[in-house]
Amino acid sequence: MAGFNVRSVLVTGANRGIGLGLVKQFLGKSNPPEWVFASCRDPKGERAQELKTLASRHPNLAIIALATDPASIKAAAARVEEHLKSSGLNLLINNAGIARLNTLESETAEDMSLVYATNVTGPLLVSQAFLPLLKKAAQGSPQPGLSCSKAAIVNMSSEGGSITNLFAWQLGQVVSYRCSKAALNMLTKCQSLGYGGDGILSIAVHPGWVQTDMGTGRLSPLGVQGILNVLPTLSKKDNGAFVNWEGKVLPW
Amino acid sequence: MAGFNVRSVLVTGANRGIGLGLVKQFLGKSNPPEWVFASCRDPKGERAQELKTLASRHPNLAIIALATDPASIKAAAARVEEHLKSSGLNLLINNAGIARLNTLESETAEDMSLVYATNVTGPLLVSQAFLPLLKKAAQGSPQPGLSCSKAAIVNMSSEGGSITNLFAWQLGQVVSYRCSKAALNMLTKCQSLGYGGDGILSIAVHPGWVQTDMGTGRLSPLGVQGILNVLPTLSKKDNGAFVNWEGKVLPW
Repeated sequence: MAGFNVRSVLVTGANRGIGLGLVKQFLGKSNPPEWVFASCRDPKGERAQELKTLASRHPNLAIIALATDPASIKAAAARVEEHLKSSGLNLLINNAGIARLNTLESETAEDMSLVYATNVTGPLLVSQAFLPLLKKAAQGSPQPGLSCSKAAIVNMSSEGGSITNLFAWQLGQVVSYRCSKAALNMLTKCQSLGYGGDGILSIAVHPGWVQTDMGTGRLSPLGVQGILNVLPTLSKKDNGAFVNWEGKVLPW
Repeated sequence: MAGFNVRSVLVTGANRGIGLGLVKQFLGKSNPPEWVFASCRDPKGERAQELKTLASRHPNLAIIALATDPASIKAAAARVEEHLKSSGLNLLINNAGIARLNTLESETAEDMSLVYATNVTGPLLVSQAFLPLLKKAAQGSPQPGLSCSKAAIVNMSSEGGSITNLFAWQLGQVVSYRCSKAALNMLTKCQSLGYGGDGILSIAVHPGWVQTDMGTGRLSPLGVQGILNVLPTLSKKDNGAFVNWEGKVLPW
């Protein structure tokens, strides 16, 4: 962790839960990033209060408005670029996600669409919009190979999206959520092939949710710190993989 | 195949390609089903002409209107139930699907949404709507265990949706299609857990597309016949699996 030198990081869905936890961890590092970009839907709203308090104490924290529509995403990339000036973005953490507590029988077309748009299409569009900044970071880095301190896309997945494990089925069928996370894992694999040649690492991470709180943004105490411990260990051999907060590879 | 006694089968997207091929194979069996239900968006349109010609020669073929909206799906289930009278539906083949030839960079929110609605939400809602008829078939069957001649949901997947294999990436990135098929595989696994106790088998099948024609509805000559050869071999041990048209298990 001490050797994890990230000059700039963007965390989506950063006003609560894991996203907020990651922002705090980055800000609290002994060698914090020059820029921590914390995005959320409504930076002026009450739900961003904790981020605003943090920003008042940390001049390297910038709160960025970012919703799921393409125009909002492009505007966010432009704002981040203004802050970065001539540097690139090292680390994009697609953390924003939602869940709906439906069963196989109660699942609806509306929730399928909404959850997919947020959990899969969102990360796709955000990655497209920030790709030039990620490429710039990769090109400007003296590091060989792939790493999270050079240029990386981290997609916050879930073991609930492991088709092999179908983690915690008895606790929640959450079909729209599971389908979205399996699709996000596929997106991660596609990004690893599509962007690896540009020096960008792509990885899907299961953050270690508390089983009974799936979807509420709460997480096990070790989750956030675990992610920050795992990210610096990732290299080219991990490109496109699915790992948990302990660094263990999970099956698709 | 000779011992494959299916009293009733519904094939979605049955007016072309694999769907039409499956309908023809069922009608041409030495022991054809009492009912073959062939659904498509617009049974009165020009693109259903071949189905209409078939129906004029096969009184056991019923063409059913079925689009992706929930109301249309429920209406289709009611129409099928009218034909079946007191019997259930043995085999539901969720074959309808679409693809968009986008790359990782050109993929759009609109195509992500459209492809997912057709390829994942469609099979989910169709399975929900036909579940009472599938349960009825399972309850009325003297067969133990699970099988396609008792009661089954067959989801037409694709090796392009294997996160492990990322089949034919160099030929077409088709990110929205790949994400949808990975999600469909997850749905299949969920259905296997959710419906197995009701005597319903759930399976994801890769039909063996010709590589250069992904998305156009063309397929390798062995594809359709292969599927019809594989379905009778499936049993409880295969519930929730992902197999190709040769019966080989594919990785997620």
